[in-house]
Amino acid sequence: MPGTVVMKFGGTSVADAERLKRAAQRIVAKREEGLRVVAVLSARGKTTDDLIADAQEISPHPDPREMDMLLSTGERQSCALCAMAINDLGHQAISLTGSQAGIVTDTSHTKARILEVRADRIREALDDDKIVLVAGFQGVSTARDVTTLGRGGSDTTAVALAAAIEADECEIYTDVPGVFNADPRIVPNARKIPVISFEEVLEMSASGAGVLQLRSLEYARTHGVRVHCRSSFSDEPGTVVVGDQETVENPLITAVTHSTGESRITLSHVPDTPGVAGRIATALAEANINIDMIIQNEPVSEAAAAELSFTVPRDDLHGAKLALQPLADELSMQLTAQEAIGKVSIVGAGMKTHPGVAARVFSTLGREGINIEMISTSPIKISCVVDGDRVPDAVRALHSEFELSGEGTIQVERPFGEFAT
Amino acid sequence: MPGTVVMKFGGTSVADAERLKRAAQRIVAKREEGLRVVAVLSARGKTTDDLIADAQEISPHPDPREMDMLLSTGERQSCALCAMAINDLGHQAISLTGSQAGIVTDTSHTKARILEVRADRIREALDDDKIVLVAGFQGVSTARDVTTLGRGGSDTTAVALAAAIEADECEIYTDVPGVFNADPRIVPNARKIPVISFEEVLEMSASGAGVLQLRSLEYARTHGVRVHCRSSFSDEPGTVVVGDQETVENPLITAVTHSTGESRITLSHVPDTPGVAGRIATALAEANINIDMIIQNEPVSEAAAAELSFTVPRDDLHGAKLALQPLADELSMQLTAQEAIGKVSIVGAGMKTHPGVAARVFSTLGREGINIEMISTSPIKISCVVDGDRVPDAVRALHSEFELSGEGTIQVERPFGEFAT
Repeated sequence: MPGTVVMKFGGTSVADAERLKRAAQRIVAKREEGLRVVAVLSARGKTTDDLIADAQEISPHPDPREMDMLLSTGERQSCALCAMAINDLGHQAISLTGSQAGIVTDTSHTKARILEVRADRIREALDDDKIVLVAGFQGVSTARDVTTLGRGGSDTTAVALAAAIEADECEIYTDVPGVFNADPRIVPNARKIPVISFEEVLEMSASGAGVLQLRSLEYARTHGVRVHCRSSFSDEPGTVVVGDQETVENPLITAVTHSTGESRITLSHVPDTPGVAGRIATALAEANINIDMIIQNEPVSEAAAAELSFTVPRDDLHGAKLALQPLADELSMQLTAQEAIGKVSIVGAGMKTHPGVAARVFSTLGREGINIEMISTSPIKISCVVDGDRVPDAVRALHSEFELSGEGTIQVERPFGEFAT
Repeated sequence: MPGTVVMKFGGTSVADAERLKRAAQRIVAKREEGLRVVAVLSARGKTTDDLIADAQEISPHPDPREMDMLLSTGERQSCALCAMAINDLGHQAISLTGSQAGIVTDTSHTKARILEVRADRIREALDDDKIVLVAGFQGVSTARDVTTLGRGGSDTTAVALAAAIEADECEIYTDVPGVFNADPRIVPNARKIPVISFEEVLEMSASGAGVLQLRSLEYARTHGVRVHCRSSFSDEPGTVVVGDQETVENPLITAVTHSTGESRITLSHVPDTPGVAGRIATALAEANINIDMIIQNEPVSEAAAAELSFTVPRDDLHGAKLALQPLADELSMQLTAQEAIGKVSIVGAGMKTHPGVAARVFSTLGREGINIEMISTSPIKISCVVDGDRVPDAVRALHSEFELSGEGTIQVERPFGEFAT
């Protein structure tokens, strides 16, 4: 039984005829290595945005079911066109809609969850030596309606199919060559990470690195799918995300990430009575706003009043203020907000077993004269809120302190052959 | 049980947001008359042409199955957008793909034939007081692949659904107000025909009137579907096509039609031996070319040689020449072609019972000094091939000779209420 691989191409990788043909060549090359290939395609370039604009022109609040019927057409077009290109290259391709591919979802339109993957038809086609192209981002609901999977849906489609047909690897082709140990725009000598564990890449995504979709990564982790994130514009290997236990040896620090997309809200004069923090958190939860960091400084004396600060995604700042103002008024607390804060984080599974990392972080930032306003940690992550303007300096300082540009992480590299499929 | 109507809107009737909304209003108005409504939509404006161009850019000969997957997306977009508009008007609409609507076809991609209509899902939706929107032009094959029905496919979808759910009427909305008794561009006082029989409208379509699709008309005739061809830009009734037996009294002449899309091929020195005409017809049939008129003048003397002339669609002229040249060479016949010929026809079920119509046609054209080059007749049609430049004169002369601008056909008009649904 030959190996099987799932290849996922994003919208930029199929944006026009020339790129579609290039994707077709990549798919064919993989097939000619003797592998069984399933490719998941997104809609071409701006297709989805255009369709959303069409809908907005018709209706201020388009019906979700109809929105799904509308948006699901974009990926079908990509697959049909790519199949034509593959057939011209002398191979047999067949395009399948999400429904034909057996992606069964719940009925929550525009953000459906996959319930089951009935991959019989895909297996039949593979057994017929066909290359299978599947329209990403979509499925069919238990009510027989077309559904879409929401943001990052095509990645989820690819991972779900890889799990269902037990593919050796799920390749995610994007316009970046892989996961870097810092943002190359800030750290010119940032290095691409050849191998990374799920827990690390999940922490990285959560703390600002935007390479892979959290949702599909969670799915891959749960179902043990090996994900290979690589560039659709070059042949070099990208970053392979492997099971947490698979990494031979964990580096002390894997990457430095940052985010400037958060805001801070501070409530002062918080009455020192039980349950207040609970009511604040509840008010935010009811507004469906996630708190990232939160700190409370207890009053040192009866005179001083307690202060509560927390960070929220900047897009949610307005909503958070609205949700909290009534409570602030009721308890006569003062609400202040800092719209643009910076957050810099270091991620590394090795931290678990190496104490003293936090100390090195703090002193490094201290040396740079960067004031740390808030701190939050996890077993494999340390995040610091700093002045937004100092984020680049903080990232560079930490990147060099932990030798991420040099050989610091070389120890985890494996021969790529091991991951080649 | 309230009445049921199928409304079909062509590409120009849903070309942009404004027109889509207008179509939605028409559909809603029909629903508010208390009728159960199924609407069949074509792809918006140039969508299909654009998708075909996209395919050509990828592949010189796109795979038919993939072509269907690609093209079928256009109608789905129209339906989803129209459903949004209807929902905003306070009604419940649901869009269905051809597959969801139960249009089962054979597997001949890009020109599939409808095998069966399993309208259960449509009936369920109608019973739920929903307005049902169906993507025209497409179905699902017995091999579970998306198929398209080829030219005029959406009309066929509408008629097939009307037959399956036993609709009282199938309304075909186009950018023309109905079937006219002559081309208004040539005859300014041409009249719209309120009621016409299938046999007449079929003859008209065959002889040049391009209002309705032959295929869907044949389907409607076979399944006894009443077709109402009307304008999507006005509320006035159009032309109702009824069963041949339903017309109370047939007018002598219903319409004058014309065509300039044909060419004539003449074979001279045809050997006066049996089977030659047969071989000629066979050669053309094998090239899949339909002959319209054909005349053979027998040699009056041994000296003279027989001549065989026939007309073919101008698009087939080149193919016809290629198909016949070998035979011409073998039998040393001379092949000449007249690329642009004109054909003018009069159609009327009343002819059957009124002799002398042909005589009036010939003398009318004679008075105008228009030479008749070929003649063909059917029980309800007389066609004459004339010089292409004289077609307009011929049409006007016959239109006035048979009083088609006046009260000549008023006798067949019925109160529209009888057809209102």
